[in-house]
Order: sequence, then structure tokens, then C-alpha cells
Amino acid sequence: MKKIADSTVRRLSLYLRFLEEFEEQGIDTVSSEALAARGQTTSAQVRKDLSFFGSFGKRGLGYEVPELAATLRDILGLKRSYKVIVIGAGNIGAALAQYPGFGQRGFNIVSVYDNDSTKIGLLWNGHKVKDVEQLDADLHETPIDIAILTTPARVAQQVANRLVDAGIRAILNFAPIQLNVPDDIAVKNVNMALELEALSYALRNR
Amino acid sequence: MKKIADSTVRRLSLYLRFLEEFEEQGIDTVSSEALAARGQTTSAQVRKDLSFFGSFGKRGLGYEVPELAATLRDILGLKRSYKVIVIGAGNIGAALAQYPGFGQRGFNIVSVYDNDSTKIGLLWNGHKVKDVEQLDADLHETPIDIAILTTPARVAQQVANRLVDAGIRAILNFAPIQLNVPDDIAVKNVNMALELEALSYALRNR
Repeated sequence: MKKIADSTVRRLSLYLRFLEEFEEQGIDTVSSEALAARGQTTSAQVRKDLSFFGSFGKRGLGYEVPELAATLRDILGLKRSYKVIVIGAGNIGAALAQYPGFGQRGFNIVSVYDNDSTKIGLLWNGHKVKDVEQLDADLHETPIDIAILTTPARVAQQVANRLVDAGIRAILNFAPIQLNVPDDIAVKNVNMALELEALSYALRNR
Repeated sequence: MKKIADSTVRRLSLYLRFLEEFEEQGIDTVSSEALAARGQTTSAQVRKDLSFFGSFGKRGLGYEVPELAATLRDILGLKRSYKVIVIGAGNIGAALAQYPGFGQRGFNIVSVYDNDSTKIGLLWNGHKVKDVEQLDADLHETPIDIAILTTPARVAQQVANRLVDAGIRAILNFAPIQLNVPDDIAVKNVNMALELEALSYALRNR
């Protein structure tokens, strides 16, 4: 399959949310116009995004809501569940662990690690904080799909190397650095400072 | 000035970080190749991104590090400071409030609001949590540049309306909904579930 842009994948996630809203409202079919209006985009964009993955919907009738939602779940890899670990038992990890949307989508946080001896052993959002030194042994025993990296920047690369060596293939990185990882490792970055700077840019240049 | 893509602004923020690293290392000039290598992009991309804003650097000599850093700070609106409020005294807000990078960049959190009577009045990261009902009066007295919205999804739109009515022009939205705001309001969304879904997509389709 050809490479799909990140922005397209992001819109697919949004379309899935809108379809689930329509489903809850008992709406069976939806036009690309209605889906576009809900997402503040254009119907041409909706049709183009979906066209990468096949032919959906019927001219004049629109898309079958439950069917398209199921297809998007399949495309997005949401028909299975994922084992997730958090490295860094801080506020960001806590916010993620308490977010109900993750479990609902099949992202299950199974363990949390830290290197701070005052945190190790404490109960944290239902998980006992483990020593990061245990990571390799644990991952050897129970393979993990996704690691959420919320350590300080200065140790993030070192922890990332360790994760990759231990077989992790996907990292959600909150540390404000650009991780260096092999090409076959999926990394998404959430950098809150960059988001604020995008706002200061907008305020400066409006 | 023509509209610059979000992805370009994001790269400018990264270039600024790299230039500051180079500065710390005592490096005076840098080539577009070196800047590109640091950011895992191409020198053509670096030159294109910078060309939107004028002509920088000298052929064969590269860019003057402190000068280009100053220009990027200017472009990104980082030559001034910003008053920031947080709506929702939860984990995400706490993570942001404790992040040293914000103050360094001139993003100063001045107040935090919540509607939870068990939180109002408590000290939270050096700020007394205020009743969200005070918001309008406070904003009338002290104009605020940026609001960070970390409320539950079901009240986020209502709070956003209130912020806009009170004169806020930039919102960093962590609530997992698409906010409906006038065109002249800058909104950036951080949706952690979407980031995880981008990873599940990558794992599914690799």
C-alpha cells in the first residue's frame, strides 16, 4: 500500500469519531458533505481521504454509517487491542492513564516505569511503579506494542534506545527532543512547547 | 504575508532549538546541510522554509547562528512574553505548569481556573485555583494572550465560547473535540488519542 500522509491518518481518526457520534444518534447513512461539515473540511477532501483505501458509499445515498466506521477501525488498526507502557510516572503519564478514551479504543496501559526511588513501588493510577531497570526483563517476558515516553529530555534518547533494543516498535514521545530511531520504528511526537509557539506565531502574524 | 503551513512553522520552532544548541556549543556559523542533518530533513527543505521570510545565509558560508536564531525568534513571535491561563486544574495543566521550557520562552502561566469546588482556593503549582465563574471579570481586568483548555470534552465548547467572548485570541485545546470558534481565533489541538491511533495505524500497515 502506498504511503499515506500523517494528516490523512489524523482525519480518518476524526471521521471515525464523527461516524460514532452519528451512530449514537441513530443515523444510518451519511453523505460526504455531512461528514465534511462535522469536521470543518470539504466533501472532496473526505472522498479523497477514503479513496486511498477503496470504494465506499453510493452516489446519491452516501455512506452506511456502521459499515464505514468498521472499515475505518480496521484501517486504523483498532480491531485489536494494544499493550502500552508508560516510562515516567509524572503528570503527563497520569493524565494519559486516567483518560477513559484509551481503554475504550483498546490501548491498555499495563505497566509504568520510573527511575526515581521515591516513586518505585508506589501505587500510581492502579499500577505499581516499576524500576526502569526491570524494563528489559519485563519486555522479554511480555511483549509490549507501544511505549509512551514522558521522561526528561536528557535521558529520553537513552531510554528510547533501550525500548528499541527490547523490541518496542512504536513510541509516543512527549520528551521535547527529536528521537533518533531506526526507520521501522513508528514515533509520534507531542511537544507542547511547539504548540504554544505555533500560537505565538499566529498571534504575531495575524 | 502569505499563509505559511503549520508544518513549516513547526519546523521553524525546531530549527530555533537546533540553533540554540549550536550556540551553546559555541558554533558561530552553520550550513543548511548541518541544520537539516540535526532535524532529519533535507537542506532543500531548510532553505525553502527560511525563504518564505527573506534571504538568510551566504553561499558557501552558511548561516550566522545567533543572527538566524534572533530572526526565528522574531518570526515566531518570541521576542515578547505571553500571559497564559489554564482552564482545568488537572494533570495536563499541572504538567504544563511545571514544564520549565514555557517560562524560558516567555509563556507565563498567570492563573488557573476550575469549576470543582473542592479544587477552588487550593494552591496548585504556585497558583491559587480560581473559580471559572470569575473568568470574565478577570479577563476584563487583565487581558490574557493564550488560554490552555484542559476541561472535559462535554464542557469544552461552552468554555471556549466564554473565552472568545472575553477577548482571548489563541487557544491550546487538549479536550478531545473539534472546537467551533471564529476564523480569527488561533486554535491548536493536542489530542493524545489521535496520536496513539496514528501509531496503531503504523503498526497495522507497516
